Amino acid sequence: MKSFLGEDFLLNSDTARTLYHEHAEGMPIIDYHNHLDPRAIYEDVRFDNITELWLGGDHYKWRAMRSNGIREDYVTGTWPDPFERFAAWAGTVPRLFGNPLYHWTALELLRFFDIDTPLSEDNAREIYDACNERLHTPEFSVRNLIVKMNVKELCTTDDPVSDLKFHRLLHQQEDRFKVRPTFRPDRAMNLLREDYRYYIDELSLVSELRINNYEDLVKALTLRLDYFCENGCRIADLSLEGGIYMEASELEVHRIFEHRLIDGSLLPEQELKFKSRLLIDLAREYRKRDMVMQLHIGAMRNNNPRMYERLGPDAGFDSQDDMNYAGQLSELLGIMDESYALPKTILYCLNPKDFEMLASLMGNFQDGTHPGKLQLGPAWWFNDHKRGMIKQMETLCDYGVFAGFVGMLTDSRSFLSFSRHEYFRRILCDFVGDAVERGEYPADMGFLGQMIEDICYKNIKSYMNL
Amino acid sequence: MKSFLGEDFLLNSDTARTLYHEHAEGMPIIDYHNHLDPRAIYEDVRFDNITELWLGGDHYKWRAMRSNGIREDYVTGTWPDPFERFAAWAGTVPRLFGNPLYHWTALELLRFFDIDTPLSEDNAREIYDACNERLHTPEFSVRNLIVKMNVKELCTTDDPVSDLKFHRLLHQQEDRFKVRPTFRPDRAMNLLREDYRYYIDELSLVSELRINNYEDLVKALTLRLDYFCENGCRIADLSLEGGIYMEASELEVHRIFEHRLIDGSLLPEQELKFKSRLLIDLAREYRKRDMVMQLHIGAMRNNNPRMYERLGPDAGFDSQDDMNYAGQLSELLGIMDESYALPKTILYCLNPKDFEMLASLMGNFQDGTHPGKLQLGPAWWFNDHKRGMIKQMETLCDYGVFAGFVGMLTDSRSFLSFSRHEYFRRILCDFVGDAVERGEYPADMGFLGQMIEDICYKNIKSYMNL
Amino acid sequence: MKSFLGEDFLLNSDTARTLYHEHAEGMPIIDYHNHLDPRAIYEDVRFDNITELWLGGDHYKWRAMRSNGIREDYVTGTWPDPFERFAAWAGTVPRLFGNPLYHWTALELLRFFDIDTPLSEDNAREIYDACNERLHTPEFSVRNLIVKMNVKELCTTDDPVSDLKFHRLLHQQEDRFKVRPTFRPDRAMNLLREDYRYYIDELSLVSELRINNYEDLVKALTLRLDYFCENGCRIADLSLEGGIYMEASELEVHRIFEHRLIDGSLLPEQELKFKSRLLIDLAREYRKRDMVMQLHIGAMRNNNPRMYERLGPDAGFDSQDDMNYAGQLSELLGIMDESYALPKTILYCLNPKDFEMLASLMGNFQDGTHPGKLQLGPAWWFNDHKRGMIKQMETLCDYGVFAGFVGMLTDSRSFLSFSRHEYFRRILCDFVGDAVERGEYPADMGFLGQMIEDICYKNIKSYMNL
Repeated sequence: MKSFLGEDFLLNSDTARTLYHEHAEGMPIIDYHNHLDPRAIYEDVRFDNITELWLGGDHYKWRAMRSNGIREDYVTGTWPDPFERFAAWAGTVPRLFGNPLYHWTALELLRFFDIDTPLSEDNAREIYDACNERLHTPEFSVRNLIVKMNVKELCTTDDPVSDLKFHRLLHQQEDRFKVRPTFRPDRAMNLLREDYRYYIDELSLVSELRINNYEDLVKALTLRLDYFCENGCRIADLSLEGGIYMEASELEVHRIFEHRLIDGSLLPEQELKFKSRLLIDLAREYRKRDMVMQLHIGAMRNNNPRMYERLGPDAGFDSQDDMNYAGQLSELLGIMDESYALPKTILYCLNPKDFEMLASLMGNFQDGTHPGKLQLGPAWWFNDHKRGMIKQMETLCDYGVFAGFVGMLTDSRSFLSFSRHEYFRRILCDFVGDAVERGEYPADMGFLGQMIEDICYKNIKSYMNL
Repeated sequence: MKSFLGEDFLLNSDTARTLYHEHAEGMPIIDYHNHLDPRAIYEDVRFDNITELWLGGDHYKWRAMRSNGIREDYVTGTWPDPFERFAAWAGTVPRLFGNPLYHWTALELLRFFDIDTPLSEDNAREIYDACNERLHTPEFSVRNLIVKMNVKELCTTDDPVSDLKFHRLLHQQEDRFKVRPTFRPDRAMNLLREDYRYYIDELSLVSELRINNYEDLVKALTLRLDYFCENGCRIADLSLEGGIYMEASELEVHRIFEHRLIDGSLLPEQELKFKSRLLIDLAREYRKRDMVMQLHIGAMRNNNPRMYERLGPDAGFDSQDDMNYAGQLSELLGIMDESYALPKTILYCLNPKDFEMLASLMGNFQDGTHPGKLQLGPAWWFNDHKRGMIKQMETLCDYGVFAGFVGMLTDSRSFLSFSRHEYFRRILCDFVGDAVERGEYPADMGFLGQMIEDICYKNIKSYMNL
Repeated sequence: MKSFLGEDFLLNSDTARTLYHEHAEGMPIIDYHNHLDPRAIYEDVRFDNITELWLGGDHYKWRAMRSNGIREDYVTGTWPDPFERFAAWAGTVPRLFGNPLYHWTALELLRFFDIDTPLSEDNAREIYDACNERLHTPEFSVRNLIVKMNVKELCTTDDPVSDLKFHRLLHQQEDRFKVRPTFRPDRAMNLLREDYRYYIDELSLVSELRINNYEDLVKALTLRLDYFCENGCRIADLSLEGGIYMEASELEVHRIFEHRLIDGSLLPEQELKFKSRLLIDLAREYRKRDMVMQLHIGAMRNNNPRMYERLGPDAGFDSQDDMNYAGQLSELLGIMDESYALPKTILYCLNPKDFEMLASLMGNFQDGTHPGKLQLGPAWWFNDHKRGMIKQMETLCDYGVFAGFVGMLTDSRSFLSFSRHEYFRRILCDFVGDAVERGEYPADMGFLGQMIEDICYKNIKSYMNL
């Protein structure tokens, strides 16, 4: 029996161990999609206690605690003592057999705090105190954590109206790693949101362009995109929910937008038409700048009205949609391709039943301009576990060019999550090593080592032109 | 090579063997969902021959025989000699490589009849005679079979109009095990069925309440629910087919029901609105009584019109639907949650493509009142095989709290099916043992043994407040 | 570590090795579905160079090259030197880690050219020259390749208007193997195609029957079917895309067809009604002749408008649809079954999420007239890889009678693809062997050897009455 969490954790063959220790382990990290707070990085924040760091905003853990029968007060409440909340989490952990949170927790304790004892109710106090002691040392400032984890680049997620103040300040001050913004125009897309007109006013203000019609909108967003690019942006993002694409004439789209500006009521279908067109127009700009576009498909958000009322969005009440969208997505990409508006694109799906469809569809738009121009997004959010990562890699192998894969991201709000790159890399090396040991690929360690380094680091670097 | 069906059948590691033999094997069974006949239990029936017991009503076997090219006369007919029908089944068995029926057949022969020879055409006569001889002994009465298999509780499936006569009589007479009714109001829901008005008359009669409107209906059903609870009921059930939820005003629902009472014609959409409302109103009653609600999602029934004409329902002509329902189910559960009408709920899906969506959706409604308040239903019907069970467990691990899982049921019409609990438990222990041996969970045998006992028996006991 | 591609490639247990080498390996091949050109077989074509043979028409390879960032000129263009195109492919191959093309390429080099070195950029020239030298020898004529691979029967894919000239000539000349036509009436179905009326004229001409109405159409097609059967046809095919079935009255279908004959415009829904009826009417004819019907479900074609304009269909721009169709397919098969129009049927799905649904649905129409009357089609096109084949076999095991499986086909346009049968057979034997070694099926090597031979060869022979 293999012991838990040793240096060969998740590595089950000699080939896997060699690939990991000689190639993957030493590669720097480019965390090309996350939700870290640039201000916290700039201010080089330190945390009072491990409860704040672990339970302050991580809805993955919140969901697990609720599922384990923990009362909401202990999950997101403030009145229980921080230790009591930590203890509630500690009591949940051993019950998460097979869950990625179990492994992430163990890896974070090991890599950041040198603790290799599995967390449980029994040792909660001891581990709580040990973590807090370390947290108060300078090596646990946010920037030092980033450096410790060998992160060279990270991309936060930012609204076009953002002034990127902290990105700019960081750029002047920090040369151990780069923090780049991601252009994520969801709020400019979501016409039906109540605050849409307020948002347009904000956008007018920061772009110094009065937005009176659809053309103005595209112009204003393009100005912001230029500003983002000046500040290091190489990647855009968008969440596609509900629908993906609906055709509409230019005139119709213009009218829909203008109708919204005078607070006219609109149907979801009209919003979709508007979003489709705007996405194409923005994609064209991404392509002009040789940027990468990410499309995150298939989240269904804010499913619990009672808790939404209480906690707002991003509190652990989102899940997978199961809509069909092959036809719509194919049309969207086809139109982009035809009109010189298809940039390098990463397609993520949240429902794993769609991995194969997406991987096969993606192949229709590979145009030979870059290896893996279209990418099957890594196992994201609800797929971010061993089985999900393996399914994503198997699918990519079966349908595409595995050696061109751009690898993992954290999608995280937590500064300890970088250890998930280690988790991915171990699973990657085991996956590759297993095939080699079974005689399904030659044991050409030169090529394989290079491939592992590419997937861990070099492919995303070249894909984003960093 | 491991030999077939030994004492370590399906157990591939030391950890798995320890967990099974020291923890799982000895746990009593609570079979919380099946279709056993309470009358047969009360009357302590014995069977004439193994054909009657095996081929009398098991549509799983019927389907396998038809797929193997056996004529319908031998499948459900009565004129061939019972042995001839048995021989047709025996000839089918070896061809069911990899099918759960192969394993179930072997386990049933072994556990009930001490026969460890694989059934085939060659030994059909010998095994037929050996089984029948045993069947005529007192230990093969239905009640003795239940006791032999260490079943402590079982829940039959019952219509609200049932008088539960046999449950009541059994309660007075039998203290070795409990037979509880399940409240399954499908017939009260299915407005479009031809005999719906007849059913309402029946319901009026048994509830001693003249049903003239929707409020009366809810009242009558609630009276029946009380009656069920007085007779040991702790669990409800419903099959959701076609649609899951459609919003409607109270007024609209009242009108739909009243229209039905005067034999007015209705659209499927109106039936769905009515069912949605009635389900919420019943769920509220389940919650008040701290009962468990089961929702069986995704069956598509009676697909073969020719055979339906000949044999009626439940004859092996049902299969998996592939509808999308994440949005509808989310709305339904959200409304229940908001209006104090969400009881402990087990969500089963028949199409395995939906396991992940369902497991992620479930997490939105875990409210911290009970560990695993919402449960991902075990691998049911067409998922009830090794691969299906493993997928269900993997999904639960990836998305939820595995240690809170309430474990397996048979969903069966046969008194020999209890050995499927053994099948599940072996697969469970192998699944857990494998992760431990690979170093993916610490070898904390105290905790793991407890977890196995919980999943086999203790979790469902506490979940149902037994 | 096992070395790559030895004689026990993909065979991981003694049982697997025995089953393969003693049973599977020696079985002849019946390639019951492919897109080979009967004229090329008749003319016993030889190829100038390996580029022509490998990159002349194989859109699998084209997609892989595009995904690897190879410019279209090198993929389908003509101006680069054949060696340069080959070198572009050779440079792509090592990067296809885990992709079936990697294995197929290696198997084709080994079986046809005795080359066991993995192809790469480094040895491209050497391998190019070695292959071309062999290609110019007589043993590399198309017919000799077929004989070399032990192919006894193969079924091409043919339009009803085809005169089957080359099938007829081959029948007179060649007795080492049989080339049978497949009746594939897609063009008679696809009412919305621009050239539909032209097609009807063609059909009128070859059937010597002026087609004025729907009855004439069925009559003409039936005449062609008779002609096909006279020329050895035992199998039909159809691609079902978009929709599967929509009910319509006879009158409505007649009117739709007549409207099309006078060039009236039609809706997609009307086309579907027409196709549904025509499919049922043809299926009845297949059943009368005890033929096999193949239904290929779920392709979404010609997704890239820009490249369609440039290269036309079948150039690597098709992918998986994700539509729901359980209900429609069930209705279609139910009506066929009821009206004596359900022949032996192979149901293929292109999106692997539907394997389980399809396998469960299939069971509703097994009528006991032939073992496996309805077949879950083998892992086709985008499923034609190790993982896809295993999923197809697992699903068949879980839901049906595995021993009745009719086995693999190539669906290929290339004369080297027969080695994919070897690929399938190795995976099959490993799959079966693994279950036996784990003690999940008795090591009854007599039965298992027979089952392997049946799946490789004998089942399809008996299924097609060859």
